[in-house]
Amino acid sequence: MRIARINTASGTRHAVERAGSWHHIVDPFEAPLRFTGGTTPAGEAELLAPVAPAVVVGIGHNLTLNDHPLPIQAWHKSVHTVAGPGDRIVAARGRGTVNVEGELAVVIGKQAADLTAENALDHVLGYTCVNDVTNVDQNAVDERNFQGKAGVNYTPLGPWIETALPDPERAGIGVFVNGVPKANSGTFNLPSSVVDCLVYVTSWLTLEPGDVVMTGAPGTAVPVEPGDRVDIVVEGVGTLASAVG
Amino acid sequence: MRIARINTASGTRHAVERAGSWHHIVDPFEAPLRFTGGTTPAGEAELLAPVAPAVVVGIGHNLTLNDHPLPIQAWHKSVHTVAGPGDRIVAARGRGTVNVEGELAVVIGKQAADLTAENALDHVLGYTCVNDVTNVDQNAVDERNFQGKAGVNYTPLGPWIETALPDPERAGIGVFVNGVPKANSGTFNLPSSVVDCLVYVTSWLTLEPGDVVMTGAPGTAVPVEPGDRVDIVVEGVGTLASAVG
Repeated sequence: MRIARINTASGTRHAVERAGSWHHIVDPFEAPLRFTGGTTPAGEAELLAPVAPAVVVGIGHNLTLNDHPLPIQAWHKSVHTVAGPGDRIVAARGRGTVNVEGELAVVIGKQAADLTAENALDHVLGYTCVNDVTNVDQNAVDERNFQGKAGVNYTPLGPWIETALPDPERAGIGVFVNGVPKANSGTFNLPSSVVDCLVYVTSWLTLEPGDVVMTGAPGTAVPVEPGDRVDIVVEGVGTLASAVG
Repeated sequence: MRIARINTASGTRHAVERAGSWHHIVDPFEAPLRFTGGTTPAGEAELLAPVAPAVVVGIGHNLTLNDHPLPIQAWHKSVHTVAGPGDRIVAARGRGTVNVEGELAVVIGKQAADLTAENALDHVLGYTCVNDVTNVDQNAVDERNFQGKAGVNYTPLGPWIETALPDPERAGIGVFVNGVPKANSGTFNLPSSVVDCLVYVTSWLTLEPGDVVMTGAPGTAVPVEPGDRVDIVVEGVGTLASAVG
């Protein structure tokens, strides 16, 4: 099932896709879902970031993909950076290379503390694509990941939440710039599994419904320039498109 | 002027203190303030964290107070850690020493990007006390400040916002544990000034009304244990009390 967040005549609504329309719902985090009766034709829906998270956590994978001596880490990214499909990433000027990073994002469905490998996925509402835009040269001088990760629209999310991804540990991830494939990998290349990320994060921080965990870029960081169009494709989820300006 | 956030019969409200009562207002970020006509006697008011920030930024002062070779840095603390006056800090067990850190917190009043030394304070609504609780031993193994800063009620804020602090660069800060003075310092001991913190943070991240910048602990970190009572006193603002459990 796909859950999106869209603009409607009565304000911002979550909605479920059925037969070419988005059917408005009251609350994506309740079960069973309640439908308001309102619908928006898919072709007319303006898709927003599918959640408005209170917390966005990124994962620093420090094992096989680089030479960093530390184990898995996490860090917070400002929620002010969250953007929707189609929003323009404002690439910082004069601050080094701007990378897009294609990642699988986990959307938490219920309060999650001290998750285990056995119950972690039970706390997930679903999955979406995230583009963890980064001023990558700043990471060398800013070990806190602040300077590299705080730009305007630096966290495009979307296009929707897929609640039925068959196996989040085996989701292919592609990055396209101006339609040209630039990276082709998947969560199977992450040093720590998606489940391990959730277990680690919730061993320190209690997550709440709507929070987002960006599971890291498995070799999916690609430099971009103003004028580029970027597509992040997560297999089984969809395509998240952004302009770079 | 003191602006608090309190529980009322009609829900959570901001309020202004006058003559022993809290006078309810519509929105602390608008000028002039609009009063609803409702009041709560000061003795009956349950004070909450005086804002519900979307972003809480901490400052890493890396100049004279330690031997770190890097300049000023910033990092995000989870908003899930924000607590009100009197809330119980859940000190992590088995994860090393738990420090309280008494700091001056800046509450942003209007959107703030690329602030300058000249205009920075024009974007401030006011000041409150913050206790940046930290599992300090984790910082040695977690350069992202995630493991040390994510515990339950690890960011007590309050008791109110003081909009008329005469000079935020010269605010004394005291830390008391069980009534005993344990640290006595002030913002005048910070390696970077309060204004410099705001200039630095907004050179990378656009802050919004209600966001909080914790300006750092000028030698005001004190270890605590379950059962302790902690008071953070910021001269000209007030006293923020917390239990440690």
